[in-house]
Amino acid sequence: MSTTPDSAVRAYIQDHRAAFLDDLVEWLRIPSVSADPAHAGDVRRSAEWLAAKLAETGFPVTEVWETGTETTAPSSALPEETPATPATPAIPATPPAPPAPAVFAEWPSGDPDAPTVLVYGHHDVQPAAREDGWATDPFEPVVRDGRLHARGAADDKGQVFFHTLGVRAHLAATGRTAPAVNLKLLIEGEEESGSPNFPALLRERADRLGCDAVIVSDTGMWSEDTPTVCTGMRGLTDCQIDLYGPDQDIHSGSFGGAVPNPATEAARLAGALHDGDHRVAIPGFYDGVIELTDRERELFAELPFDEAAWLRTAHSYATLGEAGHSTLERIWARPTAEVNGIGGGYQGPGGKTIVPSTAQLKLSFRLVAGMETEKVQQAVRDWVAARLPAGIRHEITFGGATRPCLTPLDHPALQSVVRAMGRAFGQPIRFTREGGSGPAADLQDVLGAPVLFLGISVPSDGWHAPNEKVELDLLMKGVETAAYLWGDLAENGRTAA
Amino acid sequence: MSTTPDSAVRAYIQDHRAAFLDDLVEWLRIPSVSADPAHAGDVRRSAEWLAAKLAETGFPVTEVWETGTETTAPSSALPEETPATPATPAIPATPPAPPAPAVFAEWPSGDPDAPTVLVYGHHDVQPAAREDGWATDPFEPVVRDGRLHARGAADDKGQVFFHTLGVRAHLAATGRTAPAVNLKLLIEGEEESGSPNFPALLRERADRLGCDAVIVSDTGMWSEDTPTVCTGMRGLTDCQIDLYGPDQDIHSGSFGGAVPNPATEAARLAGALHDGDHRVAIPGFYDGVIELTDRERELFAELPFDEAAWLRTAHSYATLGEAGHSTLERIWARPTAEVNGIGGGYQGPGGKTIVPSTAQLKLSFRLVAGMETEKVQQAVRDWVAARLPAGIRHEITFGGATRPCLTPLDHPALQSVVRAMGRAFGQPIRFTREGGSGPAADLQDVLGAPVLFLGISVPSDGWHAPNEKVELDLLMKGVETAAYLWGDLAENGRTAA
Repeated sequence: MSTTPDSAVRAYIQDHRAAFLDDLVEWLRIPSVSADPAHAGDVRRSAEWLAAKLAETGFPVTEVWETGTETTAPSSALPEETPATPATPAIPATPPAPPAPAVFAEWPSGDPDAPTVLVYGHHDVQPAAREDGWATDPFEPVVRDGRLHARGAADDKGQVFFHTLGVRAHLAATGRTAPAVNLKLLIEGEEESGSPNFPALLRERADRLGCDAVIVSDTGMWSEDTPTVCTGMRGLTDCQIDLYGPDQDIHSGSFGGAVPNPATEAARLAGALHDGDHRVAIPGFYDGVIELTDRERELFAELPFDEAAWLRTAHSYATLGEAGHSTLERIWARPTAEVNGIGGGYQGPGGKTIVPSTAQLKLSFRLVAGMETEKVQQAVRDWVAARLPAGIRHEITFGGATRPCLTPLDHPALQSVVRAMGRAFGQPIRFTREGGSGPAADLQDVLGAPVLFLGISVPSDGWHAPNEKVELDLLMKGVETAAYLWGDLAENGRTAA
Repeated sequence: MSTTPDSAVRAYIQDHRAAFLDDLVEWLRIPSVSADPAHAGDVRRSAEWLAAKLAETGFPVTEVWETGTETTAPSSALPEETPATPATPAIPATPPAPPAPAVFAEWPSGDPDAPTVLVYGHHDVQPAAREDGWATDPFEPVVRDGRLHARGAADDKGQVFFHTLGVRAHLAATGRTAPAVNLKLLIEGEEESGSPNFPALLRERADRLGCDAVIVSDTGMWSEDTPTVCTGMRGLTDCQIDLYGPDQDIHSGSFGGAVPNPATEAARLAGALHDGDHRVAIPGFYDGVIELTDRERELFAELPFDEAAWLRTAHSYATLGEAGHSTLERIWARPTAEVNGIGGGYQGPGGKTIVPSTAQLKLSFRLVAGMETEKVQQAVRDWVAARLPAGIRHEITFGGATRPCLTPLDHPALQSVVRAMGRAFGQPIRFTREGGSGPAADLQDVLGAPVLFLGISVPSDGWHAPNEKVELDLLMKGVETAAYLWGDLAENGRTAA
């Protein structure tokens, strides 16, 4: 069935591994933190670096695409303000992340019957600072024990980058001068900021992005020993809630106990997010949720889940979550509400007996198939407004939303991915879902193409955490899978599309 | 009845007002922030400055007293740790404020029958920074519209300092070379840190501090137009609760909803501090509380309370507090729980989809007569331990505790204070209580003397807040009251003691 001799692929990869890693390290040195406006220049530099590298790889078309060019921002990104409260000194809401450029590249097959495949990933990264607990500078990559440590090593620069060597190995092993499929790459720069401009970008550029299948390389596998293909991702929407009480900090002895305290109210909100069963207590939150079937619950239960090992990976000491669901169900198939940050009042050394003037809450919500982000956002707005007492003014600012998505287990293109991975890993491929979020649903909706997931990251890679890393051996399996995949999809592309 | 011609007192004060204010400004320039270890040197400098100034005033004995010299710290100051949880990387608790020196001064009357009076105040101040909302540098005093603005202007340097000119006016108007009473001053340096070492200092130095009455100048009056004498203060105990969840921040998509989140748990604690009636919901918290009598509630209700004006002073937009009690009852005679600070997770710009590793809560509790600080602290410890789920480790660190106190309305020495104020203000003196806290109960307990309150601050002075100020006219009434008080107490001292 194979059109490429596997040994030729492996030999090519071995020969080019060192140069490939040198290039990846250079890219990881660019701190492309999209959430922080101070790093806007670095995000742009990251895009330009990647475009140049893809041109060097052989892509005849490479372009840096600006985002956020629509004249009207999405309404959900505007701060909301409750009316009919007294004016207070303006405290600016956290500014949204500035629009960040995406990278597009295209390499036509030359075969008029070849299917077209679009690879999706992102070149921006989460914030990281040495003092967060990194053993080394997060933007000065180091290899220790076969692992490459750097912010973005796994999420997502490493997984984007394996496609560059992958396509070269595909060409070298098949003797082709162009890929067996019409290959397109779209690598965005705002994924870690919730992809606020990505749906608009997809709509604007839909004619350039048309494809028969989307390959998303921004997910993970079960473990080093159990390679898996992901079949779905959760959606995400997040918000910042700013609470304003007294116009300034006031003495807790003179006034405390007699006026509302915004830090207390922030805590009351966050403390009421979940009920006693750890279900999200916002009315309407679960509306539309597609519940797991018994068969899906069985498949989850069959995976070799070791709670103690999982807890170690989570750096945690106990599980806690929605009653009536297993840990895998909670993180893959159930919607959640999380307090990402809370702050208010005095946080310095010692004590300060005040009623603080302001408090702030950062919440995020993971969504599953059947939930609508707009409805969830409205439910949150209504819930917040209904719970705050007179004398507390509030603003809610939502970041961009990412919809959930699911791929059918028996989809033919998914079977191509499974075969290519099986050749690279030499063992059966199982199925998982991904608790994290990406703009997969937007790709599916706007481009009208099935979305498949090819990711080689493992849970211990520490996405969003200090000391993020990628396993070098798995990274090379990703290269190898990509090298096999285009031929398989070209053979099976017509049924896959 | 008067032994000093009031006009002579007023003339003396008028002649020395400018020099008095120059000296006060010099003292206010010293940022004696006791809560912040970085200012330990400034607190010491403040003590030394005051001791030198009191010597210059004429006190034959002036001493700087070290505190915190006992070998065993109070047990309540030690961090508590819940047992039987896994070890995590040590995150140091907020260090307690370093011991800060007090100032003692003594000026014997020379009359063997004279009563002995001890004036209490403090020379340390709350933290303050320009960016908190100060119109000018908090430690560069400025006079605007008859008000002296600076951190400590009212709380408490201004109110300590009026005794220096007061005693000089007393001497000038009576022709005496020593005060009519044996006058002692004890000005501590840790009041804004909860006076952790003050009870020990009182016990160690009880022989030097012996007196027939204590005058506390660290309270306020009803308003500029309604001079009042305070008859009691609330007590205070505060704590920091550190919560530890995952050993590091973890990805909310990969792990969120399946492990406990310390920011959520901090919010659940703070959010559960009060029940639906805004009563403190900690079991046992109200044990022993001496409820207000109907007569006391009537006296409170007779004061010219203007809720709208009070709210302006509170910089707040609504009242909120314990059901079944008026605002004055809530701030003067009811115990409270306040969230002074809360922090956890990501508080920077934009979003960060994490389950945070740690969170922190700073709570303070105001206590009223009948409550025991140790029992309250234990109730808080028990409540916290009972509410946290497995997988969340916690530490509670209590700051120093201050007990509540009350003075009987008909006490003879209190009547001396009322008469002296009446002469200075030229109008009837009413009675209030103080919602804030000071070590009055310790003075009463250790020294076995009645505690009286002489304060000229008004609610708009902004204690602990940006732009703190003292009204210069009221400050001079304080000077005048002090000038009359010693003669009145010498006449009535025997019945007062």
